[in-house]
Amino acid sequence: MSLTAAEVQALIREWVPMAEDIDLKVDSIAPGAATIRIPFNDRNLRPGGSISGPTIMAAGDTAMFAAILGRLGKVAMAVTSNLNINFMQRPAQKDLIAEASILKMGRRIAFCEVGIRSAGSEELVAHVTGSYALPPEK
Amino acid sequence: MSLTAAEVQALIREWVPMAEDIDLKVDSIAPGAATIRIPFNDRNLRPGGSISGPTIMAAGDTAMFAAILGRLGKVAMAVTSNLNINFMQRPAQKDLIAEASILKMGRRIAFCEVGIRSAGSEELVAHVTGSYALPPEK
Amino acid sequence: MSLTAAEVQALIREWVPMAEDIDLKVDSIAPGAATIRIPFNDRNLRPGGSISGPTIMAAGDTAMFAAILGRLGKVAMAVTSNLNINFMQRPAQKDLIAEASILKMGRRIAFCEVGIRSAGSEELVAHVTGSYALPPEK
Amino acid sequence: MSLTAAEVQALIREWVPMAEDIDLKVDSIAPGAATIRIPFNDRNLRPGGSISGPTIMAAGDTAMFAAILGRLGKVAMAVTSNLNINFMQRPAQKDLIAEASILKMGRRIAFCEVGIRSAGSEELVAHVTGSYALPPEK
Repeated sequence: MSLTAAEVQALIREWVPMAEDIDLKVDSIAPGAATIRIPFNDRNLRPGGSISGPTIMAAGDTAMFAAILGRLGKVAMAVTSNLNINFMQRPAQKDLIAEASILKMGRRIAFCEVGIRSAGSEELVAHVTGSYALPPEK
Repeated sequence: MSLTAAEVQALIREWVPMAEDIDLKVDSIAPGAATIRIPFNDRNLRPGGSISGPTIMAAGDTAMFAAILGRLGKVAMAVTSNLNINFMQRPAQKDLIAEASILKMGRRIAFCEVGIRSAGSEELVAHVTGSYALPPEK
Repeated sequence: MSLTAAEVQALIREWVPMAEDIDLKVDSIAPGAATIRIPFNDRNLRPGGSISGPTIMAAGDTAMFAAILGRLGKVAMAVTSNLNINFMQRPAQKDLIAEASILKMGRRIAFCEVGIRSAGSEELVAHVTGSYALPPEK
Repeated sequence: MSLTAAEVQALIREWVPMAEDIDLKVDSIAPGAATIRIPFNDRNLRPGGSISGPTIMAAGDTAMFAAILGRLGKVAMAVTSNLNINFMQRPAQKDLIAEASILKMGRRIAFCEVGIRSAGSEELVAHVTGSYALPPEK
């Protein structure tokens, strides 16, 4: 069973409280991919005007989760196993867009990558790779 | 100039809004090390009772930042460059303790590792390594 | 100054002895990208017939280096700063193909990603992200 | 069944051909830990006198494998799942010492970290964290 963007957004906001704090939107779900948006909010800023690291990491992690939910359906028990993030440049003071794609969907583990950019820019702000441990199939 | 635990806590809460959201405490600062605490709050729970990934990552990132601030003083412009986290087991429904130590303090980059445990447990919940880009010295 | 595939291959074999041990070929250099090949050799096998981890990591690291040399020219002093690899499935007993692309070429650091597959397959065997520290410009 | 340093060295050299190429020695096996040594050999040098990245990564990966073999016995089918390495400074032209410790030994996955130093130095050359997928128990 696959889910719509609106369904995925509702699930993530229910399951990951920090997603609610940063007002996460799921813009789209495609086969093996998801795009999320963190609306710009100066609450998330660090000194110097950068969006704070934990906000960017939360975007990367939830974008992976969105791609997996979009593919597998309502698997609440999928949990991050490993996440690696490189921060490449300071984001603009705009919405943050995170595009996740599934690199490999295994039986017990899913690998994803995520490109994170400022809205309207093609330059990467950060890049994430990670894996999710999947619950045993029923 | 080095800082006390209370000073580091105040700076991180000022600079990283998510630290405020998760009620981050800096328990102690030692030479090249810092211990932080995320008080248990069922708001941070995921389905199944696990503390959510972004909360644990925020703990790891801010623990590194605390260790660097404790060493270098008020360097607001130090920013995470790379962070890698392995999630090892579900945390207990208790405070989360993150102990960061500086692996190498270079001139332009600091490398840290962080062990994250449930309060009162010796088992790792998660383990972080990461690097911070340091601002040029004045 | 950019370099041809043959020039990049010669430089990597001169500079990285392990590239010689695994008979690394540079198949192609494109703008911001490089494809290398590790010819199948049962010397590189592990028990069970898998190509050993260090061979796959060497493929990932040298593919990034090839992409950077292809872009920047003869920068012997570019050195790996961080490398993260996920192993996704056992490779076939075939040539290993590693396709690197540059995610961001900064002034002091280059970020790359690499997809590693068995020749003729579209499935990932492993996926690498990494950064190279670049020598100061002359 | 646990193994001695000599037994672990023989197994790794049999199973990982690159370990033979770099003349890997297992110096010691302790509960949950292993120390390996890569004897200095100017064949492994890069321009500028640095030991090449793939050699250092092979040291990190095989040190983790040594710690796991020392703990679990002859588990040929344990394979690297994720490896993350930070290169911190140029190694000296001396033997390379890699000290691995097991962070968590799960049923299906083992997490390790490795500090890599030049012989006689306390400074880290590189630091590795990684996970090994373990074969199902018989």
